[in-house]
Order: sequence, then C-alpha cells, then structure tokens
Amino acid sequence: MIKNADDSETPPISHLPAPYHAPSLLTSWLIGRPLSSADAPHQAIRKRVGLAVFASDALSSTAYATQEILVILAFAGSAAFGLAFPIALAIVVLLGIVTLSYQQTIHAYPNGGGAYTVSRENLGRLASQIAGAALLTDYILTVAVSVSSGVAQIVSAAPEVLALRVPIAVALVAFVMLINLRGVKESGAIFAVPTYFFLVMLFTTVIVGLIRMSAGSLGSVVDPPHLEVTVLHPLTLFLILRAFSNGTTALTGVEAISNGITAFREPRSRNAAVTLLWMAAILGALFLGITALALSIGAVPSEAETVISQLTRTVFNGRGPLYLAAITATTLILIMAANTSFADFPRLSALVAADRMLPRQLAHRGSRLVYTWGIVALAALASLLIIVFQASVTLLLPLYAIGVFLSFTLSQAGMARRWIHIGRTARAEAEFEKSAEGTRLSSITAVGWTWKAVLNGFGAICTGIVMLIFAVTKFTEGAYVILIVIPAMVAAFRMINHHYNDVARRLSLENFGSPPLFSSQKVIIPIHSVHRGSLRALRYAQTLSKDVTAIHVATDDAAAQKIQGAWAKWGEETPLLVIDSPYRELVHPLVDFIDQAATARKPGEVITVVVPQFVPRKPWHNLLHMQTAYWLRQALLHREGVVVVDVPYQVE
Amino acid sequence: MIKNADDSETPPISHLPAPYHAPSLLTSWLIGRPLSSADAPHQAIRKRVGLAVFASDALSSTAYATQEILVILAFAGSAAFGLAFPIALAIVVLLGIVTLSYQQTIHAYPNGGGAYTVSRENLGRLASQIAGAALLTDYILTVAVSVSSGVAQIVSAAPEVLALRVPIAVALVAFVMLINLRGVKESGAIFAVPTYFFLVMLFTTVIVGLIRMSAGSLGSVVDPPHLEVTVLHPLTLFLILRAFSNGTTALTGVEAISNGITAFREPRSRNAAVTLLWMAAILGALFLGITALALSIGAVPSEAETVISQLTRTVFNGRGPLYLAAITATTLILIMAANTSFADFPRLSALVAADRMLPRQLAHRGSRLVYTWGIVALAALASLLIIVFQASVTLLLPLYAIGVFLSFTLSQAGMARRWIHIGRTARAEAEFEKSAEGTRLSSITAVGWTWKAVLNGFGAICTGIVMLIFAVTKFTEGAYVILIVIPAMVAAFRMINHHYNDVARRLSLENFGSPPLFSSQKVIIPIHSVHRGSLRALRYAQTLSKDVTAIHVATDDAAAQKIQGAWAKWGEETPLLVIDSPYRELVHPLVDFIDQAATARKPGEVITVVVPQFVPRKPWHNLLHMQTAYWLRQALLHREGVVVVDVPYQVE
Repeated sequence: MIKNADDSETPPISHLPAPYHAPSLLTSWLIGRPLSSADAPHQAIRKRVGLAVFASDALSSTAYATQEILVILAFAGSAAFGLAFPIALAIVVLLGIVTLSYQQTIHAYPNGGGAYTVSRENLGRLASQIAGAALLTDYILTVAVSVSSGVAQIVSAAPEVLALRVPIAVALVAFVMLINLRGVKESGAIFAVPTYFFLVMLFTTVIVGLIRMSAGSLGSVVDPPHLEVTVLHPLTLFLILRAFSNGTTALTGVEAISNGITAFREPRSRNAAVTLLWMAAILGALFLGITALALSIGAVPSEAETVISQLTRTVFNGRGPLYLAAITATTLILIMAANTSFADFPRLSALVAADRMLPRQLAHRGSRLVYTWGIVALAALASLLIIVFQASVTLLLPLYAIGVFLSFTLSQAGMARRWIHIGRTARAEAEFEKSAEGTRLSSITAVGWTWKAVLNGFGAICTGIVMLIFAVTKFTEGAYVILIVIPAMVAAFRMINHHYNDVARRLSLENFGSPPLFSSQKVIIPIHSVHRGSLRALRYAQTLSKDVTAIHVATDDAAAQKIQGAWAKWGEETPLLVIDSPYRELVHPLVDFIDQAATARKPGEVITVVVPQFVPRKPWHNLLHMQTAYWLRQALLHREGVVVVDVPYQVE
Repeated sequence: MIKNADDSETPPISHLPAPYHAPSLLTSWLIGRPLSSADAPHQAIRKRVGLAVFASDALSSTAYATQEILVILAFAGSAAFGLAFPIALAIVVLLGIVTLSYQQTIHAYPNGGGAYTVSRENLGRLASQIAGAALLTDYILTVAVSVSSGVAQIVSAAPEVLALRVPIAVALVAFVMLINLRGVKESGAIFAVPTYFFLVMLFTTVIVGLIRMSAGSLGSVVDPPHLEVTVLHPLTLFLILRAFSNGTTALTGVEAISNGITAFREPRSRNAAVTLLWMAAILGALFLGITALALSIGAVPSEAETVISQLTRTVFNGRGPLYLAAITATTLILIMAANTSFADFPRLSALVAADRMLPRQLAHRGSRLVYTWGIVALAALASLLIIVFQASVTLLLPLYAIGVFLSFTLSQAGMARRWIHIGRTARAEAEFEKSAEGTRLSSITAVGWTWKAVLNGFGAICTGIVMLIFAVTKFTEGAYVILIVIPAMVAAFRMINHHYNDVARRLSLENFGSPPLFSSQKVIIPIHSVHRGSLRALRYAQTLSKDVTAIHVATDDAAAQKIQGAWAKWGEETPLLVIDSPYRELVHPLVDFIDQAATARKPGEVITVVVPQFVPRKPWHNLLHMQTAYWLRQALLHREGVVVVDVPYQVE
C-alpha cells in the first residue's frame, strides 16, 4: 500500500457544486440572503459612498472635540476658554501634516495601507503587532465613544432619558452590528444619507452663525448649563497640553480610508486619496468654525447639554425645527461613525488572523461575504466598554486616541523608512548604470524620495510627540490601561502565532514517510443497559473485528445483575466485563480500562471504542439524559491509539 | 449469527473492581474524599442530631412568625397588636393537630412518609404530583426566607451592612450548599451545636423575660423603630385572617421529619416520632413566649430592627454580650434552617426522579453519597429568589406556606383514606371469619382505625381551611404566583414522565426479533486539508471497507487546487470528490452529500463517516480552531443509517 509520489497512480478526483441552502426566515430578514463568493467584486464603492462610510468617524469627532478641550480649560476657570481657538488651530495644522503623509501611503499601498501592513513591511514583525493591537483597541473605543456621544446629544434634546443612556447606547451598537452583518455596500447606501444630512446641517449652522457673529446679532447662550468646577487650578502648560490632548481626538478616524482602500472602485488609490483630502478639508473647517462660535456665544462644557446643542439653539434662536434637525443629524453621524469601525475592525482582524495571530475564524467570510466573527466581537467588546464606563464620553476619552497616534507614528515611520530604502536601492542601481549613461534622471528621483521621506518622517515625529503628550497628561486618568492592554495583546498575538505554527509543523507532511498502518482492531463497547440502541451498536462493533469486548460499569448491584441476565439472552457470545464502581463514577472506570488496553496494544493495533449514542427527538430532551457518551468521548479524544465510534440510535 | 434465547450459548461474563480515583485537591478540601456505596448505612443519625438537622427549620420560624403577625395588625394601628396572642394560641392548637396527625404517618411509613409518598399510595398519581410540586416549591422558599431572615438579624445588630444584604444572603446559601455536598452525617454534627445554642439562648431570653414581667421590672423597648404605616385600615375579619396566615409560617418545617425518617437510626419510626413531639413542644412554647413578651414590651415590626432584636435588648438591658449571643444564635439557626431543605429537597427530587418525573440525574448519588444535582439546583433556585426579592422576608412570605399547607392537606387526606381502606378490608376479613369465631377483637381494631381516620381527616380539614385562607388573603400579594407555579410543575412532571416512558418503550426488547445486520459499509471521509492527521484517518477508513470516498468542501479555489495536488501524492487511490461551496458553508454541503448517500443506501448497508479530529494540547486552543468536526457530528447524529467515527490526532 505504501507508495512514493513518483510511482503512484493518481487517485480519481471529481467535482460537484453544492446546492443553495436557504437561511431561516429570521436570519434572512435580519441579515439578507447569502451572497456567493462570485458576488465579491460588485461590493466595491464609489467616492461619494466612500466618504459616507469612512469619513463619518473623523467628521463626527467635531461633535465632541471642542467640548472636551473646554472641559479641561474649565479647570482654570472660564477665562481660559479663549485658549481653545489656538489649540484648535494647532490641531488643524497637525491634521494637515497627517493628511499629506497619508496621501503618500495610499498611493504606495493600493491594496490597503493600514498601519499594520505598512509597519509589517517596513519595520518588522514587532512593530506591526504593536500597530495591530493599537488599531484594534482604538476601533473598539471609537464605537464606544461615538455611540456614547450620540446618546449625549439625545439626552441634550430629551433630558428625561438620562437614566436610560446605557441601554440606549447598547441597543444602538446592536443596530449598527446588524446593518454591518448585511454587508458593506448596503450599509454604505444606508449611511450616505445621514452623513450628507449632517454636513448640510452643520455647515448651515456654522455659516449662519458666522454671518450673525460678524453682523453682531449673535448673542450668548440663553440659560447655559451650570459650570461644574469647584476648585480652580492655575493655567499651567500641563493643563494646556491636557486640553490639547483632548482636542486631538478630532484626528481619530483619519486613517480609516487608508485601511479601506480595497473597498473603493478602481482606480482605487486615486479615489481613496481624493476622498481623504475632501474629508480633511471638511473636518478642519467644521472644527475651527464650531470652536470659534462656541467661544463667541460663551458655551459651557456640561454632561447635561452638549456644546453642539448650546451652539445650535443659539444660532437658530431656540429649540425649533432647525435645532432639532441639527441635533438629529449630529446624533445620526455619531452613531454612523461607529460604522467606520465596523468596516475596519473586521477587515484588520481578518488580516491579523491570516497572519496566524488571531483565531482563524476571524478570517472566514460569512454568508453575506462579511467577517461575521469580527463584527460580532467588536459589538460585544464595545458594549462592554459602554456598560463599564456608563456611556460617558469624558470617562472614555483618556483611553482613546493613544492607539490612534501610536499607529500614526508607526505607519509614517514605516513609510519614511520605505522611501529611504527605495532611494538607496535606486541610487545603487543608478551608480551601477552611471558608467553607461548620465546621472540626471536618477538624482532627480532621489530628491523626490528624500522629500517623501522627510514628509513622512516629520509626520511620524509630530504624531509621536502628540502620543507622548497624551500618554503623560492622561496617564492617571486611564491612559495607563491602554499601556497595559496593548502589550498584553501583542503577547496574545505571539502565543496564538506560536500555536498555529507549532500545529502546522506537527501536521506537516514534509519528510513524512507514510502514516502507520493499522493491522488489527480491538473493539470495546460500553453497555449502560441492554436495549435496541445498544444492540445496534453491538452489531456494528461485530462488523469491525472479531475481538469485541462489552463493558458494563456497575454502580448498583441489582441493575448489574439485570444486565447480565439480558446479556446472556442478547449478547451473541460477545464477552461482557462488569466493572464495579463503588464510588458511582461512570466515566472514570471505563477510561481507565481503555487506557490499559491502549497501553498494552500490539504495534499496528488500534483500540476502537463503539459508543451507543441515544439521540432524543428534541434537543431539550438531552437535559433528561446523563450524557455519558459525551463525557466519555471528551476523555478518550486525548488518548493515543484510540478511535471513538458513535453509533446513534434515533428515537422516532 | 441470529439466535433465539433458548439455543444461545451464554456469553462469558467477568467482573473487575474499579480503582480508586482521587479527586482534585480543591474538591477534596471543599467536599471531602469520595465515599463508597458500602459506607451508606453508617450515615444514619441519632435523635439528638436528628433534632438539629430536621428541626431547625420549624424552630427558626419563631424568629419571624410573631413579627409577621404584627406587620399585618399594624395596618389597624398598634392598638390591634393585642390580637397577636390569641392568633398565636390558635396557631399552636393547629400545631398540636398537625403533630398528632403526623405521628400516625411516621409509624405507618417507616421508610419515609412525606406527602409525596403518602398521597401517591393513597390518593393516586395526580395528588402525589401536586404534593411533590408543592413541597419542592416550599423547600426552595424555606431556604430563601430563612437566609433572608438571618441576614435581617445581622442587619439589626450591624445596620451598616444593610446595603450588602443580598450578597451576604447569596454567600450564606453557597456556604450551606458546600456543607451539604459533604454529606448529611457531618453536616448534622456541624449543625447540632448552633441548634442547641439557639435553644439555650432563646429559652433563657423567654424565661428571664417572663420572670421580669411578672416581677414588674420589664419595661418597654427603649428607642423603638418607627412604625411604618401611613394609612390606618379598619380591623376587619379579613385583616385578622391575613395576620393569622402570616403566623402559620411558624408551622413550616414540621413535615421535615416525616420526609427524612430513613436518615434516623433504628428503630427509625420511634426515634423520628419522639423527635417530632419534642420539636412541636419546643416550638409551641417558644412561639407563645416570644409573642407574649413582644406585646408586653411594645415591640414594633420594622425592616430596620427585628422583633427578636428588640425583645432581647429589652430583656437583657441593652446591646451587651447576652444580646449579641442571642442575636448570633438566632442568625445561626435561621441559616441552619436552610439546611433542613438541603436535606429534604434532594431526597424528594430523587424520589420524584426515580418515578421518572424529573431528570434522572437528580437520582444519582455523587461521590459523597449525596444527591449532588439536587443540592446544587436548590442553591441556585433559592439564590435567584433572594436576588429577585432583595432578601426581604415580608416580600417572600406571601409565596411561602401555601405549598406547606397544600402538602399537609394531601398527606393527611391520604392517611385518612388509608385507614378507611384498611378498616374496610379488615372488617371484610373479620366478617369472613365471623362464622368460625367471635367478633370482639376485629370490632375493637375497627374502632382504632376509625379514630385514626378521624384524627387524620380532621387534620386534613383544618390545614385545608388554613391553605384556603392563606391563598385568598394573600392572593394579590404574590400567592397567585404559587397557584401558577404548582400546576406548571405538575405539567412538567407529566411531560418528563411521558418522555421517559416513550423512550423506554422504543428501546424495549420485548417483541423485538433481532437488531438488523450490517452487510456492507460505505465510508466517507471529509478532508479539510491533507496532513498527518487526515492521512491517519484515511488509513483507518481503509481498514473499514474497500468503498471509501474522500470529500473536500471547497470555499476557495486556490486551496482546493492545493489539496488536489496533495491528494494525488498522498491519497493512495482513494477517490476525492470536491464539492464547490460558493456560500462558504463547510458543514451543509457535506451533510447534504451524506444525506443523499444514506437515502440511496442498499438494505443492510451503513454509511460510516470517518472524521479526522484534531486534538490540541490545551483546551483553550480549541478556540483557535473551527470545530467543524463538532458541528458535523451534531448534524449527522440525527441521520438514520449513519455512524460517525472520530479519528483523533493528538498534537503532542
């Protein structure tokens, strides 16, 4: 039977298509019909939809970034609020640097240039693992923060639901999860309308506000919320940096497009790059406008009413239809912002899983072509955060943004290193060709590479400094948690990777002669009682081997005698061994006996345990039976040289 | 091969003792070493211990019965408190009737004469099911009420733990559960000390109190809690009956001894009967004494301080060592009262399970000879009640006692019917012998039976009336829940019984010719990838039959081509069928294929599915694998004519 590959006759190989399986009605209604793998390319999206899908995270941060700057400045009294505008300007400059830096990434990595991929290719394994951990953490926080801020808008308009904010937030996460389980194209269409609704409403607010401000007709907030600060702190540099750190959350989500390039229509890179530029311009303009207006009207940061709510009701003269429309739009964009993470988290975790560092289920596309496991995991983790932090943006914020800036830094450092490497290689090639031709062309290109390296390097340094500022100023408020979680995740990646590699090595057929032959079988059949099911199993056991032994574990003398009587009548000459179990254990004595048989087996012999398995008609009936077969199988799977056969007997 | 019982050679039957299996260290420390079935008789207990084990429930109700009478009378103002003593007297008379009635039961049923057994034998199936449901419900409530009252005593002495009463109560239930998992003899020894400590402390309180009262030196409660009644109700008969209903909870637990006769030493019935008399006498004396003293000192029912606490600090002049000892003793007996249910609930559920009306796991004695499942189930259900009702005795009380009085009524009605039946049979026999001898002896005995029937019948009527009063006066407060739960449990008993009988009939060998012979095997082996494990499974499949087909479900073209290449090299002429799965399903297409093969199989043919099962070294590693083998087995177990073989491959 053993043959070498060379002289083997090729076994016959045939093909068969699988039939279509209709999902249950509920699944079909919630998730949609299954999509064939052949449908995949049609799921790509155009720029307009891409802006809606990938930009909502970045744009929505304008709903809280200004407020969170003011929250910190408030420690030094409302006189310090004026500093919010220069801080916002500094953040917009940072946004410009990051955007230009990412433009280069998008063109260099048309198949998706997330921090994970870029650092894996240019900085090595550890850097990519850190980037992966940082991004995954941040996607979870994006969902928690955005949905919590969305609920805060709802509370501003309807204060009576304050006590319900945690259940409302969790329900919203579940809603976004369901939409994403349907697939990205349809969710894009769903999200396009609210994103543009938000842009129209917020630009209207800002423009009307600025016109009224320059006309002098924009007063202060009527009846502002109470400023909840008791002890005044001095206005130190540290406090200003803390306020700046809070404001940098406006930049979260900028990297989303570079991770999701493959979702765009061809030409992917160009479409993605244009979308990124538009997004940055809109974000910067909105953020500056909102900050300027908030200062002008004297808005006060508060848990009871958001700054956006104070601003819109001042610009639109009270809580009329325009106010309600603006708050609704803000709430919607925040909820939709969570969608960005639902597009990116599963995609990144599938990448990491494909690199064997997360469970491989995450790389499996479900019936709607989406990464079902990733979507469900993200929803579960974000809901947990919302419950633990009681849906408070201010409490969640210190955990947020570190991961983003860590991944920005790694990504841009990776890009800088890439340009340096390409430049060196090109120069070496050029020098090789120098003797033959002129040097003009290659030196010009080298200048291009140098500029690119400088731009990405500068971006890396800026974002690295911001990350350090954030980690230091927010350390005791909660940032330390992230500084524990990210290394722990990296360690988990490595353990999982080790496991997969270990298994692959042990299963590998390289240098593998041939699997061992089984020359004989010893069959053991546990008999709990003598009935139609166990006799059917006995019949099957007899087809396997002449060497069949039945075993009864006796916890009760009377029952054991009854079984011996029945066996004498029905056992068909198969020997029955009764094991007394004075401690009333059913599984242990059997496993012991089988262990002994396995240890004493001859070379080439296999122990086959034939388990009569009673299958009740309804699943809940299983609760009424002892499930000995299940426990036995669990125990036997770990024994070498033992094969377990289930002979089911269906009660119909 | 097929033979009749007559001409069969008897198969060889041999015996083997199972080795001793040491439990894990933690289990051993918490639960104790396993006990052999041969140890069972030594677990019987003497009267002194029996009183501690079975009487704590009944005795401990003195800790709340007086208070709960006053809670209701308080609706009519504190002037109505005086009625508490006549109500208590009526309850003690009822106690006397029930005790005498149960004396007869204990002698008639030396193997345990719970309401379940008595009504099963004398009133039929439905009555026994109702009695069983009523008792099981009440055991659960006993644990919840006793532990909650115990925690109320703790709160009286240490008001600062008020907010923690639910977690404290749940922790106490867990503690009693652990002690019971060790077994009844040892738990008897543990509980004997606190029971006697309680008796000494409470009798001291009552005697000292009564002496001081007659000497005129017993004043009123200093600084009594505030009486929490806002609207005064008129003192109607309905209100008095509600107060009486609350007081009847003093009788709960009286039936415990009759259920637990088998736990006593020989002569069982005599020992149990004497213990019951002692218990009733002690209970009646304490209850009357406490009620009289509570009225004398003007105690006020309150959630903040129990009546017992008010009484003892008045009798002992403040919160000194004697006060603390009395409160500690009361707390302990209440916690220990829960133990009565932990002795009886598992015993009764094992009886019901042996009658095939509850999952048979409940009839299985664990390694310490106790009914592990019943103990754990009781602890879980009681903890749930404590959490739902926030450990409040007053909220739990309306659910309590209906079950007890329902089972009292059924039990005594059953006894009455029994005496009538015996009397009639004896009279018929006597009349048959009349012609030969005189009639004097038999007529005297008939008078004995008549008296017995009258006593039990009177008991049944009294307790039946009390049950009706309870159900009517407490209906809207929560008693309706029990009137739903008990019929639901009876329905569940019947469904479970139907299932077990149905299965037994279908498995029965009566009128069963012989199991079908398996003439040929068709073997199917699913191959996810070609590696050492799947080749080992292929080898095994080849030993079973010449007709082996390998199946690969292809979700990905590249992988499928790789596998076809590998199969050409390693497949050893076994044909490989590739099923394309465009919807990326792994299990459905396989099951469909096997279904078709099963439908098309020849008579006597069996389809054997050989599943290569990868077994990782550590259980958590399973999370990193797809578990396709598990889902496949679950789906195939329900297919007729299909046998599933697991060929494990252990990664070591």
